[in-house]
Amino acid sequence: MTDISMIEAAAERARGIVRRTPLLSSPFLDAVAGRRVLVKCEALQHTGSFKFRGGWSAVSALPEEVRARGVLAFSSGNHAQGVARAAERHGVPATIIMPADAPRLKIENTLAMGAEVVLYDRAGGEDRNEIGARLRDARGLTLIKPFDEPQVIAGQGTCGLEIAEQAAEEGITQATVLTCCGGGGLTSGIALALEARAPGMVVRPVEPEGFDDTARSLAAGTIQRNAGPEAGFCDAILTPAPGGITFPIMQRLCGPGLVVTNEEVREAMRQAFDRLKVVAEPGGAVALAAALFHGEALGKGPVIVTISGGNVDRALFAGVLSA
Amino acid sequence: MTDISMIEAAAERARGIVRRTPLLSSPFLDAVAGRRVLVKCEALQHTGSFKFRGGWSAVSALPEEVRARGVLAFSSGNHAQGVARAAERHGVPATIIMPADAPRLKIENTLAMGAEVVLYDRAGGEDRNEIGARLRDARGLTLIKPFDEPQVIAGQGTCGLEIAEQAAEEGITQATVLTCCGGGGLTSGIALALEARAPGMVVRPVEPEGFDDTARSLAAGTIQRNAGPEAGFCDAILTPAPGGITFPIMQRLCGPGLVVTNEEVREAMRQAFDRLKVVAEPGGAVALAAALFHGEALGKGPVIVTISGGNVDRALFAGVLSA
Repeated sequence: MTDISMIEAAAERARGIVRRTPLLSSPFLDAVAGRRVLVKCEALQHTGSFKFRGGWSAVSALPEEVRARGVLAFSSGNHAQGVARAAERHGVPATIIMPADAPRLKIENTLAMGAEVVLYDRAGGEDRNEIGARLRDARGLTLIKPFDEPQVIAGQGTCGLEIAEQAAEEGITQATVLTCCGGGGLTSGIALALEARAPGMVVRPVEPEGFDDTARSLAAGTIQRNAGPEAGFCDAILTPAPGGITFPIMQRLCGPGLVVTNEEVREAMRQAFDRLKVVAEPGGAVALAAALFHGEALGKGPVIVTISGGNVDRALFAGVLSA
Repeated sequence: MTDISMIEAAAERARGIVRRTPLLSSPFLDAVAGRRVLVKCEALQHTGSFKFRGGWSAVSALPEEVRARGVLAFSSGNHAQGVARAAERHGVPATIIMPADAPRLKIENTLAMGAEVVLYDRAGGEDRNEIGARLRDARGLTLIKPFDEPQVIAGQGTCGLEIAEQAAEEGITQATVLTCCGGGGLTSGIALALEARAPGMVVRPVEPEGFDDTARSLAAGTIQRNAGPEAGFCDAILTPAPGGITFPIMQRLCGPGLVVTNEEVREAMRQAFDRLKVVAEPGGAVALAAALFHGEALGKGPVIVTISGGNVDRALFAGVLSA
């Protein structure tokens, strides 16, 4: 299971490869939030999201002869790109199974990273797990799961090591840390890193309305699932339920979850544009939205938020700016 | 006159205040340019442009009793915000003289930074220099010029110190460095820093079509002025001519200037959005445009470009993304 030594080993393997993203701030954001706001900007990570951390960690941790046979991932988005880039930089093949109706740009990006993309027909009832199992067995591939995988969590935890160091440079050791939360890989990884390196900080996951499975799971003490649709505005972080590995970590270490509206997310995207000059995708802006618009739920003191990714289509972003 | 020791002193005064901006990259940009492209991202600097470096350097270099009386700047844009923020953080008054028809947002931002904004009527023939001289004499203010001022050049030069260090970390000591060039403060500051710290690098200024005063001045060997209008798409870097201090520095140290079209600038803004997740304003994207679309003029080897600022209105940026 992931612990601080596994996170530190992941950081060691990532040295010179994974980008140390900046911790940004703006007095204008502080004014909106009524407190100091520091923004860990993973949109600036390679591949445009924190997912490269976990992808690199998992691929680099494989025994060389296993890695050489190749890796496999299911994803229509950021995890696909994180794994594809990690495989490309290791010089090993990546097979990514994507829904045929995934955004054209994401398919093209994943192809451009040298991955083999296998498309399946979501609507037509093709079973992606069956396709994956067949390819895995035929080729000896290793499946890299998107969040419920110890080495992936360790990789995301390297973001937490940087938060602890960079916040300390700003004189901050006590803070609420808001994470953009899908399956809980980033949230649990950061929580484990901060438990060891910044025990004065409390991590709280943030989710969009209608997809608050983690908040409800933390409140209930058992894993709860989303009842509604699978798709939505904050596409990068819509998962049906927290993971069997990530949930117990979050349960032990995190404060209560927060839920934001899509309109708050849009305004956070505009604020990141105006004040930080950073492109945040919808799922990457939920934590900033909570910091800006849910201060009453946060108690006192500074808040540190992740902007977890920036992979958003031009047309969608232009529409958000024009609203 | 500005030299490396003045730049290093500026860096010392800026420690913990001016942000060390990241040197970003993307294999997708490398593919477009046909070479390695590293992007020094000053849009992520405080106030959204490199101008905070020069503003901080100049304000912090003043004797305390002089600084306490306050500073004065003429600007409708990024220099206004750089000086205003530097004054605010020193706790001294800033008076910024702005045209009444400057973008509302830039006036509001400058006010929000605690500056006194004095508006003048450009069209009605009011002389801003007369207004400035009157305020300076009445209040004992110190004028901070936007580029033709040694301590401002020294401040911009701190960006060059970082480029030298960060490129060396990537194993790069030989490169073409493309700068977004208005009056030449950033260009001459970076050139002085690299002369001392990375002598294998050659700086080349980049300008937009119709405002290529620096390129023509370098070619002619004497200062040339722009004949056309004062306003244009790349508003942040439109100056009538290089400065009397900056030009001799550029003449001694820089390679020939490059000129890009507005359409190339728009495409560079889209590429920065797609590939770096960074907001570049038009004037901040000219150097990236040259790297991506004028490779034939660059010789071999890696190129380092500045994205000098990101202060662009939502509507303009949305329009660029939608084109």
